[in-house]
Amino acid sequence: MDTQELTRELNTDNGSKIVLAVADGLGGLPREPGGPTELEAAATPNLDKLAALGVCGLTIPVLPGITPGSGPGHLGMFGYDPLKYVIGRGVLEALGIDFDLGPNDVAARGNFCTVGKAGVITDRRAKRIPTETCTRLVEKLRNIRLDGVELFVEPVREHRFVLVLRARGIEGEVNDTDPQVEGRKPLAPEPRNAASEPTAKLLTEFIRQAGEILRAERPANMLTLRGIAKKPPIPSMQDVYGLKAAAIAVYPMYRGLARLVGMTVLEAGANWTEQVQALKQNWAAYDFFYLHYKYTDSKGEDGDFDAKVAHVEKFDAEFGHILALKPDVLIVTGDHSTPAVLKSHSWHPVPVLLAADSCRPDEATKFGERDCLRGGLGRFEAKYLLPLALAHAGRLQKFGA
Amino acid sequence: MDTQELTRELNTDNGSKIVLAVADGLGGLPREPGGPTELEAAATPNLDKLAALGVCGLTIPVLPGITPGSGPGHLGMFGYDPLKYVIGRGVLEALGIDFDLGPNDVAARGNFCTVGKAGVITDRRAKRIPTETCTRLVEKLRNIRLDGVELFVEPVREHRFVLVLRARGIEGEVNDTDPQVEGRKPLAPEPRNAASEPTAKLLTEFIRQAGEILRAERPANMLTLRGIAKKPPIPSMQDVYGLKAAAIAVYPMYRGLARLVGMTVLEAGANWTEQVQALKQNWAAYDFFYLHYKYTDSKGEDGDFDAKVAHVEKFDAEFGHILALKPDVLIVTGDHSTPAVLKSHSWHPVPVLLAADSCRPDEATKFGERDCLRGGLGRFEAKYLLPLALAHAGRLQKFGA
Repeated sequence: MDTQELTRELNTDNGSKIVLAVADGLGGLPREPGGPTELEAAATPNLDKLAALGVCGLTIPVLPGITPGSGPGHLGMFGYDPLKYVIGRGVLEALGIDFDLGPNDVAARGNFCTVGKAGVITDRRAKRIPTETCTRLVEKLRNIRLDGVELFVEPVREHRFVLVLRARGIEGEVNDTDPQVEGRKPLAPEPRNAASEPTAKLLTEFIRQAGEILRAERPANMLTLRGIAKKPPIPSMQDVYGLKAAAIAVYPMYRGLARLVGMTVLEAGANWTEQVQALKQNWAAYDFFYLHYKYTDSKGEDGDFDAKVAHVEKFDAEFGHILALKPDVLIVTGDHSTPAVLKSHSWHPVPVLLAADSCRPDEATKFGERDCLRGGLGRFEAKYLLPLALAHAGRLQKFGA
Repeated sequence: MDTQELTRELNTDNGSKIVLAVADGLGGLPREPGGPTELEAAATPNLDKLAALGVCGLTIPVLPGITPGSGPGHLGMFGYDPLKYVIGRGVLEALGIDFDLGPNDVAARGNFCTVGKAGVITDRRAKRIPTETCTRLVEKLRNIRLDGVELFVEPVREHRFVLVLRARGIEGEVNDTDPQVEGRKPLAPEPRNAASEPTAKLLTEFIRQAGEILRAERPANMLTLRGIAKKPPIPSMQDVYGLKAAAIAVYPMYRGLARLVGMTVLEAGANWTEQVQALKQNWAAYDFFYLHYKYTDSKGEDGDFDAKVAHVEKFDAEFGHILALKPDVLIVTGDHSTPAVLKSHSWHPVPVLLAADSCRPDEATKFGERDCLRGGLGRFEAKYLLPLALAHAGRLQKFGA
């Protein structure tokens, strides 16, 4: 029996409200030996006060040592085992452009590429063509017609696009056509089971027509497909937690991930201040709010320690408005760490604080990695965060007599 | 491979003695922000000395955020995965009146209720009839005869009773007849599998005869059945740990839970002092002793912080006598938390201390929630407590070469 089977059985609606405020890539590393992390370096008076009153800890996004992408990072934080619910790259790419994927959709990430004589790939990214070129080529690909299936082709950025096939009953277990190395021809789309054979045939025909359409283009005269997949069947937060959940996120991928678990995606405005205003405006209508703050991750990825510190401070600055709403449970964390010194996502555990009347206080007095090490929540897999939120909100009944 | 598969293979008898002293609902919460918990507020010189000498930690009874009933709380503490061994409410209710359930018994919790015209339930608890009335009605129900099955009906308290059907080969996968809401008729007892169909038929006939017997009674003119179940097949502590185990508990439910895992239930006397005397008297005859102290939980459930503190102090006062017996391993913990401020069981991790010559000391110097956070055992699922006890007692061989 997993944690969601328990919450599905034990959840009860007591009218309480939970806020999950996520600073993407929050966890960090010191810039110099013995120095503070980005979070420790930032002046965060609101978060420090919450850490002192509440209970702190560190989450392991997937398993020790495993660096998550945004998909597994968010699923774990939402209480879904990221090793059980695996999201294909095509699906994530479609979510990332706000494409509303349905249960009859097979999505693929497409790359324009360059092929030479005999169809051998000479550049897997077609010299990273400008996005405008990508958009023009996608327009052409939209002329492709396949029997019995609705087709969507959407530009993403540079050489990247999204392909979606929509038809009742199609399956998505088909291998990548990208051989991952140059000097080889694109692979045929191979089905991994009998049910996916029709999809493989449709993709073969799509690729054939695309080859004709692109033949005269330079450098993008061919394409490859990766991460071909359907959206996995995921129970909604209403189903597993009894929560009417809403997401307030500026970037499409996070809205898509929230939609994947059944959240209502609210109009978020353009920045953190407006996101918190949206929280206030929608306060009465939902039990659970997921707020996503992007810039801590972006600045970490840029390797800009000081800018990440500054954005942590901007994140902190709005918490007075959040607290004024008197949430029963307020959680502040990240979906993973993005240390500026690594310029990338990392496996390091992620600081978390939980403030609620029912929390058992600990000796953490500030919100930072070192204080969280002394926190009463300890170190735990992120998938247990939502059950802890429900417990502290009084939304879980006793297990067994 | 789970922990019990390992201990089953690796256990060895070196003649050492283990004491597990359980203060029910031990873990707590501060009454005021920044204040001590009940355990921290109590003067516990004996437990503090043990905490300083030994190693401390915190157990998670089931999973993070999950509040256990007494059944899962105890099973976990005894090293049995509480998600694998689920005890039906009928079984627990029977254990709670010291009924010696056997492998051919199906137990159900019964509630007397009131039905109006057309058999619709108007009061699910029959105005909580006095226990004497319950006893009188149970006497009448004992006149019911069913083909091929021995029948036991036992009063519990107010409107509650226990029904046990005993027959070789009967199964207990039958749904509740209590519709959980008033304004509906009792449900028929529906079998969940083919093997339980005969049981469902027997229960249908029991209910029919009970309806005739109770027809003229007021307000208890009908009954419902809940938590219909057999005792799950649980390996004994002798099997999985090689321990000759004894229980010293005053309250029936805890004696029943101990019996469920194969412990011998000793005459316990009426209070904690007498329980510790019973430990001394039986010291030579067993390897493992489970001592259960109830009042910390009762006072927590009452919401009486000061009384819980006083009972922690009484619990502490007898440890000189326990230590005089020189147990090789002494563990002090609870089956769950019952913070007085919540007036109920809770999900909060439970303080634990383990004293043994072989333990690696830590920086905990007192027995309390904050000190346990710094403890060398860390935070762990309660099901790992028994393997740790065996290890510190020198009762587990090396795994692998």
